[in-house]
Amino acid sequence: MQTRFLPFLTWARQYSRADLSNDLIAASVVTIMLIPQGMAYAMLAGLPPQAGLYGAMLPLVLYAAFGTSRALAVGPVAVVALMTAAAAGAVAQSGTEHYHLAALWLALLSGGMMLVLGLFRLGFIASFLSHPVISGFITAAGILIAASQLRHLLGADISGKTLPQVVPSVFANSADISVLTVVFAAVILAFLIWSRAGLARLLQRIGIAPPLAKLLGKTALLIAVVTSTLLVWALGLDERGIAILGDVPRGLPEFGLPAFDFGLLQLLIAPAAMIAIVGYVESISIAQTLAAKKRQSVDPDRELVALGLANLGAGVSNAMPVTGGLSRSIVNYDAGAATPAAGAITAVLIAMALMVLTPLMYFLPRVTLAAIIVVAVLSLLDFRALPRTWAYSRADGAAMAATMVFTLFVGVEQGLMAGVGLSLVLFLYRTSRPHMAVVGQVPGTEHFRNIERHNVVTDDQVFSIRVDESLYFPNARALEDRVTQALSDRPALRHVVLQCTAVNYIDASALESLEAINERLQTADVKFHLSEVKGPVMDQLTRSHFLDALTGQVFLTQFDAMVALSPDLTRACQLQDRCETLRNH
Amino acid sequence: MQTRFLPFLTWARQYSRADLSNDLIAASVVTIMLIPQGMAYAMLAGLPPQAGLYGAMLPLVLYAAFGTSRALAVGPVAVVALMTAAAAGAVAQSGTEHYHLAALWLALLSGGMMLVLGLFRLGFIASFLSHPVISGFITAAGILIAASQLRHLLGADISGKTLPQVVPSVFANSADISVLTVVFAAVILAFLIWSRAGLARLLQRIGIAPPLAKLLGKTALLIAVVTSTLLVWALGLDERGIAILGDVPRGLPEFGLPAFDFGLLQLLIAPAAMIAIVGYVESISIAQTLAAKKRQSVDPDRELVALGLANLGAGVSNAMPVTGGLSRSIVNYDAGAATPAAGAITAVLIAMALMVLTPLMYFLPRVTLAAIIVVAVLSLLDFRALPRTWAYSRADGAAMAATMVFTLFVGVEQGLMAGVGLSLVLFLYRTSRPHMAVVGQVPGTEHFRNIERHNVVTDDQVFSIRVDESLYFPNARALEDRVTQALSDRPALRHVVLQCTAVNYIDASALESLEAINERLQTADVKFHLSEVKGPVMDQLTRSHFLDALTGQVFLTQFDAMVALSPDLTRACQLQDRCETLRNH
Repeated sequence: MQTRFLPFLTWARQYSRADLSNDLIAASVVTIMLIPQGMAYAMLAGLPPQAGLYGAMLPLVLYAAFGTSRALAVGPVAVVALMTAAAAGAVAQSGTEHYHLAALWLALLSGGMMLVLGLFRLGFIASFLSHPVISGFITAAGILIAASQLRHLLGADISGKTLPQVVPSVFANSADISVLTVVFAAVILAFLIWSRAGLARLLQRIGIAPPLAKLLGKTALLIAVVTSTLLVWALGLDERGIAILGDVPRGLPEFGLPAFDFGLLQLLIAPAAMIAIVGYVESISIAQTLAAKKRQSVDPDRELVALGLANLGAGVSNAMPVTGGLSRSIVNYDAGAATPAAGAITAVLIAMALMVLTPLMYFLPRVTLAAIIVVAVLSLLDFRALPRTWAYSRADGAAMAATMVFTLFVGVEQGLMAGVGLSLVLFLYRTSRPHMAVVGQVPGTEHFRNIERHNVVTDDQVFSIRVDESLYFPNARALEDRVTQALSDRPALRHVVLQCTAVNYIDASALESLEAINERLQTADVKFHLSEVKGPVMDQLTRSHFLDALTGQVFLTQFDAMVALSPDLTRACQLQDRCETLRNH
Repeated sequence: MQTRFLPFLTWARQYSRADLSNDLIAASVVTIMLIPQGMAYAMLAGLPPQAGLYGAMLPLVLYAAFGTSRALAVGPVAVVALMTAAAAGAVAQSGTEHYHLAALWLALLSGGMMLVLGLFRLGFIASFLSHPVISGFITAAGILIAASQLRHLLGADISGKTLPQVVPSVFANSADISVLTVVFAAVILAFLIWSRAGLARLLQRIGIAPPLAKLLGKTALLIAVVTSTLLVWALGLDERGIAILGDVPRGLPEFGLPAFDFGLLQLLIAPAAMIAIVGYVESISIAQTLAAKKRQSVDPDRELVALGLANLGAGVSNAMPVTGGLSRSIVNYDAGAATPAAGAITAVLIAMALMVLTPLMYFLPRVTLAAIIVVAVLSLLDFRALPRTWAYSRADGAAMAATMVFTLFVGVEQGLMAGVGLSLVLFLYRTSRPHMAVVGQVPGTEHFRNIERHNVVTDDQVFSIRVDESLYFPNARALEDRVTQALSDRPALRHVVLQCTAVNYIDASALESLEAINERLQTADVKFHLSEVKGPVMDQLTRSHFLDALTGQVFLTQFDAMVALSPDLTRACQLQDRCETLRNH
């Protein structure tokens, strides 16, 4: 029972020296990536750089204690940072106290929501977000993230949250573009892109063993940061137009609940819900992919609890919303992280960095961080997903396109809402048209099949219809419409039989539809019958008054129904020869 | 083709003298109800009384030309009037020009939406509104409508749009209650309630033929209006605290598009959408019920077009949003309306009344109209629906309760949104947990059944799972979770077989889940196979790259799969005796 809520008890008992050594190596590599990435994502979120580093401390410790994934690296990530910027930017001016307060409350609210969803096992809520929507959203978010870094890459005062805002701003400020910054950006971008594959190869070529070379290859971010900082400091480039980070406060964050502001909270509830769901969906799929490689498992609801606590931790430690990030998780896994302790060790290393290294970051150029962000989001872009999805399914392609267009041109939240709304509408559209077959008897048998596909015998007085789906509110109306239509099309009609072979459930809407059908048929002097009702459905119906009001009967089989309602035809039809006669008649 | 869009051509060609006589009688009875009801519902909507009468002219003519129901009586109705009051009241002060402008734009916007939905055959959108939500909403709306009339029934300045606003207001204004008004209200209410059954009975007893007596019974509203107006005029009760209607402008409405105000329109889009959907759902179910009695049919999409045009007509004729109303439709049907011409004739009669009768309405007491409203909404209240629905299904009961509570205590729009949101969430919850069965071979056969329900044989190296539902985004994650779990639970696992017997469709989300499962299994050196894939699903899959990436095979039957993957066990199992041995082993 204890391990249920404190998963670390399972691995902590058997924690070995080998585990510690593996975790230490993994933690060191992750820390080297996390220091520049954390500050970069804080900058992306519109927050001071230390917010990103604080987000790599307490949240990691909490996730290590409560998370079920052994390789997931939690912390600031690009998409959530962008969503934070969008939400906080809607209620406050970037750089103000109020803005940071909004970011903290976003972490607390989204963390609280994740925690509640996890405790009540409501993780299914995330299924509102279909794959095409999340995939379209992430590509569009990647573009917006890259666009948001243009101000740092070009050294000009470019602003805007959507493409229609950013693009004119680039042209309006083109005179202010700093050539030195652009050159700097180009060199760093080229180095980082090359280093993704090239650095490890180079290290191998000069004689370093492949595994170590691969790990050292991950130090590209550190190399870029150190080199560019030294360059700016040595050549005094900060006075020639290269923007630098400036003072980063030394030491640990202050802990405590941020100031309470009810009006602010109300405005942040919807974006916090989106951050919670997007963060969870991203994180769980990374965690499951990594767990499968070692045949381990992650528990979706406990992951929600752990991520919720991590975000609550972020909210009380002056940080920013966090979740599991893809690139660092892969590095963590590849570097051999054995247990979640790797995350906790990372947190300690970050704390040490905060106490020692911050003064050295004064001359760190902002353009370096921007280049790190841009390189990180390159892996988010998947432009082939849209044509691929469209080719597979028009509905899914439309949902993806709507998500991308709204995200890029209207805003992050509107994009997600448009995508979720459209997928729901299209899902309901599909569900609202269940497959319904009018059935007749296959001659010589007791089987009943679709009259459109088989040579079957029917009786003008009896209308038998089979619905190939459970009956619930999205499709209740379709059955009503179909039966009402049949009633007006068939003047000889005396009986309607609903064959319930595929009906596993009837909700209250469908029950009322059945009642309405029963009443309407009654006023037209037509009886309504059911056949082949499954046991659980029958139990459900007996809890209502429907069976008392039913004008017809409930037959065990469709054949029983036809024997009772159309005895001559049905019996005749059982004799194949007679039946042929009847059919040719 | 013409009749497709102009249904009146179908009946107008055969229009007979007998039809005209029937329609004339029905129209006269409906007009007698409509004059007081129209003014009352305009008052309920916070509009001048003539808005209700104008709403019974052009909209009726348009519905007669385009509608497919022969008995539906279109015009102002209580629930839509309440929704109009709520929406207009949120953007303007009742009684102002701006308020009436908002009501007109609500009619135009909801009419335009209905028209578009109808033309594009998107009526399924209405299925978002499940029966429990609409039923809970209408009962709650009925209570709010009655509460809103307290100011007229008590003659005191009671205000508020929700129960928590109205109730304290009654107490705060209790000193101002006009005893004379209360007495007046009590007498009229008693008369109207008694008359619903008693008036026709009384008329029959004094020797009037039953059908005529039934028709004359519908004149109770007129009797109440005439008597109370005469009383107020004769005794000068308007000077003793009975509020009167005052001037009602004589003559026809002015036609024309209301003033355009983009800011206002933006605020009204959401409530207009709700009015469109609630109005449509109410109207279509009345129309279908009445059509079934005569084995006629109504076309849902053409009904949307007709109601849309009726509302556009209301918007350009200074009226208010309209839809099909239950009570007048039943009267129209009972009075023998033969064709939609009855509606057009009603419009002419109302126009005549507007030109002649309006001066006589000066002394009409508002308390009479309030009593008419209260009696009309009594039939909307269904307090037993909640316990009945709850007993049948907790989920539906919860959605109904949420709708009622939010409508009564927060507001009309919030109530609908809470209900729709909760039903969607609960629907997704159900859908996100499809029935999945791990299957094994029934000894001695080629059948595979749920291992939890049958004595079946399984192979530790093969995990066979059957999903009893199509795969789409609400349930895609569930399959992923289940397979990931199996992978960590079964160390010997070599093969996973997904039996697709019940899968009719795989959307892009589910496809990505299958790809993720395939990849994850591959990293763990487990092969992924499909069996019994239906033709259309196979066609779909060949349009993607999934089958190329699939590590395993697609088997025609589950038995083929097991023969290939677990040949010894499967063949042995076909021999019942050997099989028994294996099982007892």
